[in-house]
Amino acid sequence: MSNNGFGEPGTVGLVETQYFTFAEPPNELVLESGEKLGPITLAYETYGQPNADRSNAILILHALSGDAHAAGYHTPHDRKPGWWHETIGSGRMFDTDRYWIICSNVIGGCKGSTGPSSIDPKTGKPYGLRFPVVTIADMVNAQRHLIDYLGIDRLLAVIGGSMGGMQALQWAVSYPERLRACIPLAATAHLSPQSIALNEVGRQAIYRDPNWNHGDYYGGPRPDKGLALARMIGHITYLSDKSMHRKFGRRLQNREKYGYDFSVEFQVESYLQYHGENFIRRFDANSYLYLTKAMDYFDLSNGHRSLVEAFLPAAHVRFLVVSFTSDWLFPPYQSREIVSALKAVGADVTYCNVDSDYGHDAFLLEVETLTELVSDFLTRICREDGLDIPEPAHPTGLPMRE
Amino acid sequence: MSNNGFGEPGTVGLVETQYFTFAEPPNELVLESGEKLGPITLAYETYGQPNADRSNAILILHALSGDAHAAGYHTPHDRKPGWWHETIGSGRMFDTDRYWIICSNVIGGCKGSTGPSSIDPKTGKPYGLRFPVVTIADMVNAQRHLIDYLGIDRLLAVIGGSMGGMQALQWAVSYPERLRACIPLAATAHLSPQSIALNEVGRQAIYRDPNWNHGDYYGGPRPDKGLALARMIGHITYLSDKSMHRKFGRRLQNREKYGYDFSVEFQVESYLQYHGENFIRRFDANSYLYLTKAMDYFDLSNGHRSLVEAFLPAAHVRFLVVSFTSDWLFPPYQSREIVSALKAVGADVTYCNVDSDYGHDAFLLEVETLTELVSDFLTRICREDGLDIPEPAHPTGLPMRE
Repeated sequence: MSNNGFGEPGTVGLVETQYFTFAEPPNELVLESGEKLGPITLAYETYGQPNADRSNAILILHALSGDAHAAGYHTPHDRKPGWWHETIGSGRMFDTDRYWIICSNVIGGCKGSTGPSSIDPKTGKPYGLRFPVVTIADMVNAQRHLIDYLGIDRLLAVIGGSMGGMQALQWAVSYPERLRACIPLAATAHLSPQSIALNEVGRQAIYRDPNWNHGDYYGGPRPDKGLALARMIGHITYLSDKSMHRKFGRRLQNREKYGYDFSVEFQVESYLQYHGENFIRRFDANSYLYLTKAMDYFDLSNGHRSLVEAFLPAAHVRFLVVSFTSDWLFPPYQSREIVSALKAVGADVTYCNVDSDYGHDAFLLEVETLTELVSDFLTRICREDGLDIPEPAHPTGLPMRE
Repeated sequence: MSNNGFGEPGTVGLVETQYFTFAEPPNELVLESGEKLGPITLAYETYGQPNADRSNAILILHALSGDAHAAGYHTPHDRKPGWWHETIGSGRMFDTDRYWIICSNVIGGCKGSTGPSSIDPKTGKPYGLRFPVVTIADMVNAQRHLIDYLGIDRLLAVIGGSMGGMQALQWAVSYPERLRACIPLAATAHLSPQSIALNEVGRQAIYRDPNWNHGDYYGGPRPDKGLALARMIGHITYLSDKSMHRKFGRRLQNREKYGYDFSVEFQVESYLQYHGENFIRRFDANSYLYLTKAMDYFDLSNGHRSLVEAFLPAAHVRFLVVSFTSDWLFPPYQSREIVSALKAVGADVTYCNVDSDYGHDAFLLEVETLTELVSDFLTRICREDGLDIPEPAHPTGLPMRE
């Protein structure tokens, strides 16, 4: 097992974000809306190495606030590793001794890929709201260009949670010939009205911040108050009633008695405030608008007579669908709907409803359970397809306990 | 059955809000915080008539956005009746041929009772944030003064949903000798951290509106954007995932295709916007802060070793506890916790978990089911206690179907 000097077995250690630019005019990407976008830069990272025929490539798709930096550290001084660090490395869920892992940022985001805070080459100024509205299908279309560029004919698997799970499903529907397996976690085939409503109040919080200025705030004061508020709303939906009981209860922050005033006094209020303030340092308000809007539009059956019909071309793809019992944002019934439609087209589907109190966030936190599920599933795909990928050093993919 | 000329059998017809003022200095009401408040005005309405010993009085307690106007019309031109109109009248759930119904507005509110928008007699200006923080126990203490004034020794019952249910439970704990029965609907014995979090983001939406001006906005532009946003958040929590599916689905408002822009386009967005805008015309932002804060502080076991201990003095009160299956704001487990504690003190408890898709709003909407439950329960109390109240004209309390 490798050790990168951070004293942590299996870590991928120091990594670097890479950038791929394509769709240079006049060959812009045509979006679902009919609008054109180009040039487009995608930020991405890779971990592990490709095998000879590049059949060991796995594409990780991130959620709303994620980015290309899924694992490792950018500098030895980084306090935090990538967002799914625990799952990527030697002997981990995504075993870098076996697989070549790619994580790509989405278009519309603000983490190095082209989005509303990027410079519009036509004006020399940030796009702002002049950036075209993108959809999950557009994000996936852009990623397909990256996969072409990386010389990957067929991905071993696409995997992601939440908005990442939507992208995974969209991959299966849009480019089924380009993948062997698809693993949507805590996902849905179409955003529910409740989720649209929650996204809309987040957007309204941004619109109503006077600094937002209809999206033209770059170079001036930013709509921090609105964005932080949107994040606070989001955070409530990522947790569960039960996990909040356990994490905070009705405990007060730094005081023993009610203050009978309007200061932040419950621990849960302090937690939300902290996460709201933290978010404004690392996210762009316009990107929040674009990405939530992309989710709202997400409806795999749109343009088809049914979800079953939409899945028809993906009948040969093998699926591992995972939901989490306490996830009320994308509840298990929404995963079961996916499973039913996939079964109806005769696809090979494994479904697991993981018992967890963590709510929607469980897809990031239930690492041990997911490691068993995902690594066994990936090993099965490799064996079934006779791929030239080494067998795991230990059966479950979990680091050895000594 | 009476008919008031509005063509509606059983209606209470035209009604008038009344006002009761007490706690004139130097006899101010001492609040839970230790602060003093006075004079205090309570707005209230009554329906039906008291019997000779005033043993037929029922006190209705309203929720966050409610008021004293529970039933009937203030003028013949009113487009809408009181908020619980369908339940109050001749032959209805609260049968005005039998009972004397009182509905009192809460202190801290903005519907005629003393609250942050009232004039502070010390300064001649609206209180704003100089209004003292009030609790559910303070609201109930003020109502007790009204009940004294109305010459009621012992209420037949207190009943309310949501924040009204909290007040009903607080009545049982604070003044158990003043009631025979207590009916909390869609209520809780202490606000959960999830509910505190949702209240806090609503408050933050108001704080972050520049017009809020730390509560001093009376006479100037009002924090309408913040208050409307708070209401939008609230509205999501009053519905259920299922009721939103049925009510809106993913249907678009006034268009057939996605607009690929940031205008309001899903029906659910339009609904939230409408209810947000509607709310600012009838509610005060500071009152929203005070009432949500009162809910956050609500914890019946506070100051006791347990909820069971808190309920000890109420062991002789008869309870009808009602929850609703799809209520995720105050879920059924929170009502069952109340029922368990009441059983532990030997109280007479009837519990019903009503199967409903309406979410938290079910306590306002499941009129037929509630009518059967509540009117039978009230009739039982009258019989058991041998009260001088006429028997119902028909067994269930429901209007006769012809």
